[in-house]
Amino acid sequence: LEERWLVCADLETVAVAIETMVVRGAPAIGCTAAFGLAIHARNAQFQYWKDFRINFYAGYDRLQRTRPTAVNLFYALKKMSAEAELFDDALSKDECVRRLETVAVALFDDDINTCRQIGQHGLSLWSESRKLRVLTHCNTGSLATAGYGTALGIIRSLHQAGALEAVYVDETRPYMQGTRLTSYELKADGIPFELICDSSAAYLMSQGKVDWVVVGADRIAANGDTANKIGTYSLAVNCQYHNVAFYVAAPLATFDPSTASGKDIPVEMRTPDEITKLFGQQVAPSGIACLNPSFDVTPASLITGIVTELGVLRPPFTDSIAAALNVQRAEGGFCP
Amino acid sequence: LEERWLVCADLETVAVAIETMVVRGAPAIGCTAAFGLAIHARNAQFQYWKDFRINFYAGYDRLQRTRPTAVNLFYALKKMSAEAELFDDALSKDECVRRLETVAVALFDDDINTCRQIGQHGLSLWSESRKLRVLTHCNTGSLATAGYGTALGIIRSLHQAGALEAVYVDETRPYMQGTRLTSYELKADGIPFELICDSSAAYLMSQGKVDWVVVGADRIAANGDTANKIGTYSLAVNCQYHNVAFYVAAPLATFDPSTASGKDIPVEMRTPDEITKLFGQQVAPSGIACLNPSFDVTPASLITGIVTELGVLRPPFTDSIAAALNVQRAEGGFCP
Repeated sequence: LEERWLVCADLETVAVAIETMVVRGAPAIGCTAAFGLAIHARNAQFQYWKDFRINFYAGYDRLQRTRPTAVNLFYALKKMSAEAELFDDALSKDECVRRLETVAVALFDDDINTCRQIGQHGLSLWSESRKLRVLTHCNTGSLATAGYGTALGIIRSLHQAGALEAVYVDETRPYMQGTRLTSYELKADGIPFELICDSSAAYLMSQGKVDWVVVGADRIAANGDTANKIGTYSLAVNCQYHNVAFYVAAPLATFDPSTASGKDIPVEMRTPDEITKLFGQQVAPSGIACLNPSFDVTPASLITGIVTELGVLRPPFTDSIAAALNVQRAEGGFCP
Repeated sequence: LEERWLVCADLETVAVAIETMVVRGAPAIGCTAAFGLAIHARNAQFQYWKDFRINFYAGYDRLQRTRPTAVNLFYALKKMSAEAELFDDALSKDECVRRLETVAVALFDDDINTCRQIGQHGLSLWSESRKLRVLTHCNTGSLATAGYGTALGIIRSLHQAGALEAVYVDETRPYMQGTRLTSYELKADGIPFELICDSSAAYLMSQGKVDWVVVGADRIAANGDTANKIGTYSLAVNCQYHNVAFYVAAPLATFDPSTASGKDIPVEMRTPDEITKLFGQQVAPSGIACLNPSFDVTPASLITGIVTELGVLRPPFTDSIAAALNVQRAEGGFCP
């Protein structure tokens, strides 16, 4: 409804922006946290790295505690600290800041390139025999990444290729990212779509109106189990029942090989206010109990393919994920 | 948030109350429509039935067009017209009104009794080996029936019997009947519950936290296919995947043997405003398209049992439904 820019000029403003979901979407959180650490260095009073080291890691810890589920946050922070570990004690402040900013900017640029590659690989899944009806959940576009988007990047690529017959957008309760963000992006791009309630997706599938569901991810375990916005799992179960393809779109930075399976992924529980209040207005009787998980975990068995910047990973995911991360490492990329 | 009573003193007020969902819930719609026709007769200026007959059926038509999906509406109107067909032309206004009111009051009383019987039959499904975690959708309580409720009636009976460990209430987008009505009723009755977003139900099932889903119905076809509030079908698919019992609770008045299967049930599409506005506040970009089906149809194959006033119907439903309706007819009940 309103486009407003929040300037984050210090670490705490960045941390609160992530906590309060001014910035949300796993890749966007990662980039923002990296810039947060660079800003933190620039703002500090110190002459040499040795005088800032402890403060740097305090900032690292502050940002690490903002959100628990998206692994991109930890990945980006680790890339920054990996750079910092190369600093010697006598490195000047200017040089510290320059190097940290270089890493943050590289993360940002990489994310946009990655999204465009994901979009192209997603497009390669289109058989061209007929146009697609695609359903998506939450927001995975420019407002969730450094730009272009993951799942929404694929929708953008399909649209540019003339491959789309219809796009259905889940409103995505409770935070309404579909209503507020994805609708905004698709409208701005002139991509036709219809907004639906989350629970209507199954009805559309039963009517034969959905060919693909494509969603983003907040963390993908070594076996392919995928944590994403609450409601994703229900969609995946319905896709299996209706024989609809279920694709996850995510950069390799979203993979967490140290997490063996979905049961090891912490699911953030958020405030009941997101359910009992709508845009500040109380809509439920006062004092009632709510359960508000912000994410759920979709088991690999329900996933048709995972679209990454290196191509589409297929089951068995334990193998295809390990192979993709090895390629990434071999190419010299920092890898989770 | 506010308890406000709307006095409906004429046919049009009744019709608009149904159309605008002041009165909603299939059994409540039926009772309200019956009273609407009785009020219509009382308000009219006529001496003998022959002078009112055409006007009576005009009122019948007006009410019949208010909502398309709930069959209780048509059932109640047919009960009223079946009574009217017994009137001879010279019947006085007072006697017409008295007889129509008697039928409407009987429908109302029957509905409460029916709900209590449904509650008892639902309780009989409890094995007593351990307490139940029950999830429900929409509102099926006192605010959806003449009183007590269907699915919520079963939850009330379970609570009274000490059979409940937990109740989860879907908020039920877009109209928020769970948030606004079911929460209100459960809080008033002191039954502990947790409100959740519709899409969290699958997550709870994956955590092993749901034993039963119990929902109401707006129309049940001859083969057991069940139209109910949008979101019901998605729950049923998830119940099958998670091996959770899926019960429908409905009076026999909700069955429509003239509808062979779910594909013959019209699904009402409601205004996009229910999705793009929340309590009057615009929350989506302006001018976007929405798809807002108010109901979906759950195939009989996903239903564990249908709890009626005559007992729990089991698959194959074509047989068990026909048998129940035959019993009802044999007992002299007006039957759909």
